[in-house]
Amino acid sequence: MQKQVEFQEAIKTKYPEQVVIAIAKDKKDKANPVTLGWTMIASGTPPMMAIAVAKKHYSIETIRHSKCFTISFPSSEMADAALFFGSRSGRDSDKLAEFKKCKTSPAKAIDSLLLTDATANFECTLESETEAGDHIIFVGKIIASHTNTEPKKRLYTVGSGHKLGSVS
Amino acid sequence: MQKQVEFQEAIKTKYPEQVVIAIAKDKKDKANPVTLGWTMIASGTPPMMAIAVAKKHYSIETIRHSKCFTISFPSSEMADAALFFGSRSGRDSDKLAEFKKCKTSPAKAIDSLLLTDATANFECTLESETEAGDHIIFVGKIIASHTNTEPKKRLYTVGSGHKLGSVS
Repeated sequence: MQKQVEFQEAIKTKYPEQVVIAIAKDKKDKANPVTLGWTMIASGTPPMMAIAVAKKHYSIETIRHSKCFTISFPSSEMADAALFFGSRSGRDSDKLAEFKKCKTSPAKAIDSLLLTDATANFECTLESETEAGDHIIFVGKIIASHTNTEPKKRLYTVGSGHKLGSVS
Repeated sequence: MQKQVEFQEAIKTKYPEQVVIAIAKDKKDKANPVTLGWTMIASGTPPMMAIAVAKKHYSIETIRHSKCFTISFPSSEMADAALFFGSRSGRDSDKLAEFKKCKTSPAKAIDSLLLTDATANFECTLESETEAGDHIIFVGKIIASHTNTEPKKRLYTVGSGHKLGSVS
């Protein structure tokens, strides 16, 4: 049976929620990673993905500037990187320089980076942006895809309070 | 280490993927449920959610007609309903009349239905639509939320081939 409650109560049943790390370069050529939970596939042919980014985040500027971005699926062993990239702003810091453990390599088809230990990386060109409340939805067309050569589990937010882990 | 592969290969690492059932009424007042895996929260304040619906699906017409829809989080015991609603078209059939096991009740704030056994139901008014390849992204503003009075696990697509189940 259903009972009416506040949104914040009902949305607790959402978890586990997938986590992605989106990366775009700013005008100074600094690659800025941000951890996002609000993401989905948006098209099958051609493949596209959507991410919702808070309007106040520096990533808005970086994606608009470079008109492309990587969507990386962090592996379960990357929880500390996901927490770090999700809790700092790249406006006044270089998150990848500070968090040296997170290995990267250049993307192949766009001017961005891939995360070496992710389960997968998707190189996207910016297709559209749509305002949605306090976020901007960016849709990216995927023009190159990569997987890890080793099998890894994907990282999820497994419960409220940003608790991260894998699921089975 | 990353290796470049086809999108269809890399996206296999996405699963488990959350499943929702979106419901909107058509011009004959028939409530049409559709099962979707491509969905995300889009805004915190006000709360909004986005769903990506294939352009060929009858749901496109029903959402455009009624300008509102329910997003329901099916519980793990609703796998058969999710498969049924996801594999039939409502263009020439009444899915809820045919699948009698799926109990519903009227929504409170919009002209739609709630699914009684879902973990949660969100009543949305249509905020925007954006074309994305072979899908349309609908963003809905959530104006009423509901949870199940009993604790239930949410339904996920746990692997390729549309295998459904719960995760932990």
